[in-house]
This record gives sequence, structure tokens and C-alpha cells, in this order.
Amino acid sequence: MAELNYEIKKTIGVLSESPKGWTKELNVISWNGRTPKYDLRDWAPEKEKMGKGVTMTEEELMQLRVLLQEIE
Amino acid sequence: MAELNYEIKKTIGVLSESPKGWTKELNVISWNGRTPKYDLRDWAPEKEKMGKGVTMTEEELMQLRVLLQEIE
Repeated sequence: MAELNYEIKKTIGVLSESPKGWTKELNVISWNGRTPKYDLRDWAPEKEKMGKGVTMTEEELMQLRVLLQEIE
Repeated sequence: MAELNYEIKKTIGVLSESPKGWTKELNVISWNGRTPKYDLRDWAPEKEKMGKGVTMTEEELMQLRVLLQEIE
């Protein structure tokens, strides 16, 4: 994977952990020195590998929050 | 991309739309005929292409909702 230059600015929380120790996490990450964004993806133990994920702006995250609040 | 066999069971909502018409969406999708999961990713107009994304179980989505409720 090419996206290796990153800095985790903040861990907001862990959604789940797999039997092999991979965690699905919501973090605030700066990719390649750019403005930090919200980032939702799977991580191997010790952050050794990363899975595919999505990055979100604050506006997108707030819109996601609204959508989730409406789910029963 | 290999993951082309999918069925969008339900669109929960759109988080944003880019100037080129790509949308970041939360859907319920069945991948390769498997049990539908929540799916957050970017889509090109008319669903012609898809970006990277994350899939979530209902438990993960509910945990995400809790995390987002705690953000100021």
C-alpha cells in the first residue's frame, strides 16, 4: 500500500476487534502531512498493517452522525 | 477492482457530494451474495465506479453511533 506516511493525531474510539486482533477504529489522521481528517478503517495489531478505509471531513462526520441518529 | 458483484439493498443516506458528482454514501450492501452489511464509501455518478470503503456489522455501526454522539 502506498499510503504509509501518516500520523494518528487522535483515537476517537474502537468499533470492534476481530479474533486475530484487527481493530476497526475511528481516528483523526494526517496523511502525508496534510490537514488531519477523520478516518475509519481496520488496523492490524500494533498498527502493523492497515485495511481499506474512508476519510471524512468534519462536515461529513456530522452528517453521518445525523444519519445514525435516525436509525432505529 | 475485483469486488464488482454487489447489490445495494438500501441507501441510508448521502454524507457529501464532490464537485465531480462523487457521493459519499452509507448503504446496506450485499457483497457476492453474502449477508448484507453496512457500507460507507465514495461512489461515482450513476454508481459507475466505487472508491475504497469500510463495511460494518450492525454492532459496529451502533458502536460508531455511540462514539459520534460523544463528539462535541
